[in-house]
Amino acid sequence: MPPGSLGRLLEIGRQLAAIQCTERPEGHPALIAVLAADHGIAEAGVSAYPSEVTGQMVANYVRGGAAVNVLARRAGAIVRVADLGVKHLPAGLTDHDSLATCPIAGGTANFLERPAMSRVEAYRAIEAGLALGDRWIRDDIRVVALGEMGIGNTTTAAALIAALTGASARDVVGRGTGVDDHRWEHKRGIVADALEFHAPHCDDLWDWIARVGGFEILGLAGLALSAASKGVLVVLDGVISTTAGLIAARLCPSIRGHFLAAHLGPEPGHRVALDALALIPILNLELRLGEGTGAALALPIIAAAGDLLRDMATFESAGISGPTD
Amino acid sequence: MPPGSLGRLLEIGRQLAAIQCTERPEGHPALIAVLAADHGIAEAGVSAYPSEVTGQMVANYVRGGAAVNVLARRAGAIVRVADLGVKHLPAGLTDHDSLATCPIAGGTANFLERPAMSRVEAYRAIEAGLALGDRWIRDDIRVVALGEMGIGNTTTAAALIAALTGASARDVVGRGTGVDDHRWEHKRGIVADALEFHAPHCDDLWDWIARVGGFEILGLAGLALSAASKGVLVVLDGVISTTAGLIAARLCPSIRGHFLAAHLGPEPGHRVALDALALIPILNLELRLGEGTGAALALPIIAAAGDLLRDMATFESAGISGPTD
Repeated sequence: MPPGSLGRLLEIGRQLAAIQCTERPEGHPALIAVLAADHGIAEAGVSAYPSEVTGQMVANYVRGGAAVNVLARRAGAIVRVADLGVKHLPAGLTDHDSLATCPIAGGTANFLERPAMSRVEAYRAIEAGLALGDRWIRDDIRVVALGEMGIGNTTTAAALIAALTGASARDVVGRGTGVDDHRWEHKRGIVADALEFHAPHCDDLWDWIARVGGFEILGLAGLALSAASKGVLVVLDGVISTTAGLIAARLCPSIRGHFLAAHLGPEPGHRVALDALALIPILNLELRLGEGTGAALALPIIAAAGDLLRDMATFESAGISGPTD
Repeated sequence: MPPGSLGRLLEIGRQLAAIQCTERPEGHPALIAVLAADHGIAEAGVSAYPSEVTGQMVANYVRGGAAVNVLARRAGAIVRVADLGVKHLPAGLTDHDSLATCPIAGGTANFLERPAMSRVEAYRAIEAGLALGDRWIRDDIRVVALGEMGIGNTTTAAALIAALTGASARDVVGRGTGVDDHRWEHKRGIVADALEFHAPHCDDLWDWIARVGGFEILGLAGLALSAASKGVLVVLDGVISTTAGLIAARLCPSIRGHFLAAHLGPEPGHRVALDALALIPILNLELRLGEGTGAALALPIIAAAGDLLRDMATFESAGISGPTD
């Protein structure tokens, strides 16, 4: 075909080919993993919604009624949900095919007052993600999309991005879901205070991810590492999912070649994290829901990129004339 | 759901709802229309490929081997092809289900020397597009994507965009498919010369579209008008398809509410035309192939936008707690 004519679609196809070590790659089927946990920082009034919503949404994902479920059905993708530390899980939700219950604790601590979790809990959250990869990623899965739910987790993600990239609280804190100007200013102050409070105690990556981290975010980092080790493309969604990608890349820099950024959300920290990973998103839809919704929308494009490398006629095979000079 | 959380995906759903006059819109099934014609300006050496490629690619679309066919299969969309004025149509290609032969002439004239077509031919090209809409848009079709093929047509599109928006040749001329720096400068000069040559004779829109137009571009404008009149969403692809949208909007300004811009291509005129239509594209993939490839990639997103309005649980129906204040 003419040089460059398929732009980044061809790059995605080549990325699949490189990961799968084949000239005829597949960009389908895909698994959307939605990891959920609660955040102690929600006590500080950073969200418009109460922590109960985390568990209620887990129930909604399991029932198939959420936005990510609708988008997954359209994309022909499987949705799997995991409880990494939900405070109020609705009664009757037990471990089964579509829900994994592997809570590290009933939510993190408020990181304005103490570390969100211990270093041991941070290791265990990453390990839980690795185990979810072994449980969920069947042999035919070619793509894993990282989704999440956790009231307060845009604040946790902002603190992690600032800590890992050196950006300021002002550069990374956005409105999250449904936050007004007043609460936005409050969130910025909280992230700045948390960074100042923990910095004297932080010597390495593990100190930071334990002190200002979240269980679902670390679980997603572990799941990303598992997926990459199995030769699977990892699709990053919004700011929280991309923070998980950033952590995975700090633990294992070569994972970056397995990442695809689905969309650019309106949280300012999202762009900071994408820049730190040198990733350019393919969709521009101003989504701020999380859950893996943006990643779900990118799945048909990824599948199509694989199709093109397998099924498209070349100029030669189709008898098309070449350039005249 | 939380305000704004689904961003422009919800806007697309609302657009479908408004066009279809229903709260439960459908964003599927879709038809991808690929209109082809040759351009006299190709004589001036604006393309790296010979005019023969236009007809050869028509044969490739009909056989199902081109990029747009592969992407259409992934999206579950129908491809229909039309000859609006192909100079060298391969033997054996006759009018049938997937190919409509309705040539206005065997390509346009070189608009550096004379008008590309007469005003009567311009009317006939628009009428041919209206007739294709009646032929192809079955009752269940909800979305029509505008694709095209025509060696030389990025130069025609650049001239039309400059003429219709007042932009300069430098603002609108890009590299087309596989053009080097030297040919790029040559293309800019050609468009500037053509605008200067025809301007003294142009009093209205019809003068311009006849003098620097192309048969497939005018056909697509007619097809867009037909689709809109039938309550169908019209998906614009690259710079040529968007030029057709611009012409349709000048003929019938209210059509803009039926348009969705699929992607932003690298041709500078594409952004000028999108700005003139006040459209923001949803994909960022640096595609420059045309054919409707970018529009085809947007189809699953449009289908998903309809799904969300029909199938997603509300906070109330799913028993999710509302905001705390």
